Amino acid sequence: MTRPSAYLDHAATTPMLPEAIEAMTEQLQRVGNASSLHAAGRRTRRVVEESRETIAEALGARPSEVVFTSGGTEADNLAIKGLYWSRRPRRRILISSVEHHAALDPARWLADSQGAEVELLDVDAYGRVQPDSLREAIERDPGSVALVSVMWANNEVGTVQPVRVLAAIAHDHGIPFHTDAVQAVGQLPVSFSASGVDVLTMTGHKIGGPMGVGALLLARGLTPVSVQHGGGQERDVRSGTLDAPSIAGLAAAVATAVKEQEAVSRRLASLRDELIQRVREAVPDVVLNGDPDDRLPGNAHFSFPGCEGDALLMLLDAKGVECSTGSACSAGVAQPSHVLLAMGADAAAARGSLRFTLGHTSTRDDVDRLIEVLPAAVERARRAGLS
Amino acid sequence: MTRPSAYLDHAATTPMLPEAIEAMTEQLQRVGNASSLHAAGRRTRRVVEESRETIAEALGARPSEVVFTSGGTEADNLAIKGLYWSRRPRRRILISSVEHHAALDPARWLADSQGAEVELLDVDAYGRVQPDSLREAIERDPGSVALVSVMWANNEVGTVQPVRVLAAIAHDHGIPFHTDAVQAVGQLPVSFSASGVDVLTMTGHKIGGPMGVGALLLARGLTPVSVQHGGGQERDVRSGTLDAPSIAGLAAAVATAVKEQEAVSRRLASLRDELIQRVREAVPDVVLNGDPDDRLPGNAHFSFPGCEGDALLMLLDAKGVECSTGSACSAGVAQPSHVLLAMGADAAAARGSLRFTLGHTSTRDDVDRLIEVLPAAVERARRAGLS
Repeated sequence: MTRPSAYLDHAATTPMLPEAIEAMTEQLQRVGNASSLHAAGRRTRRVVEESRETIAEALGARPSEVVFTSGGTEADNLAIKGLYWSRRPRRRILISSVEHHAALDPARWLADSQGAEVELLDVDAYGRVQPDSLREAIERDPGSVALVSVMWANNEVGTVQPVRVLAAIAHDHGIPFHTDAVQAVGQLPVSFSASGVDVLTMTGHKIGGPMGVGALLLARGLTPVSVQHGGGQERDVRSGTLDAPSIAGLAAAVATAVKEQEAVSRRLASLRDELIQRVREAVPDVVLNGDPDDRLPGNAHFSFPGCEGDALLMLLDAKGVECSTGSACSAGVAQPSHVLLAMGADAAAARGSLRFTLGHTSTRDDVDRLIEVLPAAVERARRAGLS
Repeated sequence: MTRPSAYLDHAATTPMLPEAIEAMTEQLQRVGNASSLHAAGRRTRRVVEESRETIAEALGARPSEVVFTSGGTEADNLAIKGLYWSRRPRRRILISSVEHHAALDPARWLADSQGAEVELLDVDAYGRVQPDSLREAIERDPGSVALVSVMWANNEVGTVQPVRVLAAIAHDHGIPFHTDAVQAVGQLPVSFSASGVDVLTMTGHKIGGPMGVGALLLARGLTPVSVQHGGGQERDVRSGTLDAPSIAGLAAAVATAVKEQEAVSRRLASLRDELIQRVREAVPDVVLNGDPDDRLPGNAHFSFPGCEGDALLMLLDAKGVECSTGSACSAGVAQPSHVLLAMGADAAAARGSLRFTLGHTSTRDDVDRLIEVLPAAVERARRAGLS
């Protein structure tokens, strides 16, 4: 097959931006540990601190609020475990039922082995947390809530959460609010200071930066207990040698992604609307999941009645169209999406779903390719489902 | 200053090998999440799995025993916290007093907040753990020991520990043995299976690989509790998107470093011996720290009587010689090295120490440069110390 694949899985990971590759590969050629006192160390520390300033400025934060991590999963673990431990004896963690596993699973582990009580916040049929449900959960016993965690935008169905409203409710009771903004940065305008969020997770490889690097934005005055102990880097919140090349690549990606966010998002939203329209024409009984309006510009998520998502994914892949049944991070696990179940889908509809996500390299050719092969693939998946 | 610096701080971080840069930059150009089911995901997964096989083969392990992490600090945290939690209600952690902070500090945190009892194993004047002291500590109450952790070779003074003997003692009582081999891999022959060690930490940037990536070798049958929860990657021991470019770079570095280890180590040991000899001639009252014979081939560590290490470091740096007062990871912190104090040094000798470490790019020119500027720097540091 000489024709290139249509990559419709940018929410799993997106190609690196040339700016990020360049910034990173330049650092790979150099030596220096940012903790060393000599000239090579100081040069490396400058790279790290300039990257910190770039990221802070792009995301409306102060440089001192940026804590570098190895990615979104680590940042979520640090936010949730670190805040929980730092606020003991408060035991309750209020977290949405549609979070990524990187947030849900740390909370569940705290419940299983560290005495936490995890309460899942319900969502509506579009996957949105209702502000009243958060208010009620808090008001049952405000003094026992360690933290609230609700993602900025959902990685599976693309629904954008009312984080500013939710953060304000938490703040009415002095409770810190964490958001996983891994999918939001670069696709939506994200200002840490304007959002009112106290702790924000972001990562490189969803926005054109490197894998293996991310950051936790951490409002002044909050000191989560460290999850990774050691040399005391990052003001003792996160130990480990600072990965200067990846941090430089992350900063370049954030700067570019944020600068171009408005234009790219407008283009992708238009392309995404076209994709949704044409999928509906090609497969009339398809169901669009997630908020029809307030969703990530690159996200289209459907249930295909009568299909198994995995089978449909493989049929499309064989025709050069790459997509996902949900989160890549739990792909391969044959269980229906917890996000769709929380939204009220039945298990069959949840299993028969596919996610198509666009990114900075997506073009109309990708959509054409999908529409070209989708009807036959759906028909075949349905026959397989009946047999 | 046009003359390049003499970089004598390879134990802090060493330049990347060309093979590692090439393997990594090739992956930076490609897209794919190793958890995705489609062709791009499968291609990425192949890169990860081939890297795993390469690393396993080079280090005498099985591929299924390799767990990728973001580096040595994370691997140490996973080993120590994960084993401790998995073996509760056993509470005792036996750990050498000369460990890196990445091992000591997780143990101390477990003691402070998770009910552990940490017992530091004494070392002799060379920094070696005495096997009898481990045996006695275990035999006081074998059933209460969760794990033993002793590094393969010390990052400050270079002393090599008798890990095989120590591991055998732990095994006599069915206790898992962890070793931080961050400094050993690439400098000493390291075979996971032959060593008898159950859990081994290694990292990329000390052996010519990338920063931000490392691995925990984990013998079959051991299942530490995860420290980073989420998507369930790495058989649920370590969640988080697999950083395929860095993993490819790590594998290339391990393969090259292990293949060339014997020749490089012979060359470096000879250069190191020359450095020691010439430093002794230049500063007659200098004291070599660590085991004079059984030490890392690239390590020379001295106490300079009457000097403050930080002051001497900065004086040498101003003359283009880059070295360290100890671990880069706690550099900048004005406290005497816990390693030297554990070896019986007094605080003044501990503060007046410098580490010179050689690596794959080191040459005699670096040693010449050091010897050229050292006597005047020591004299000046001594005058500063008297004033």
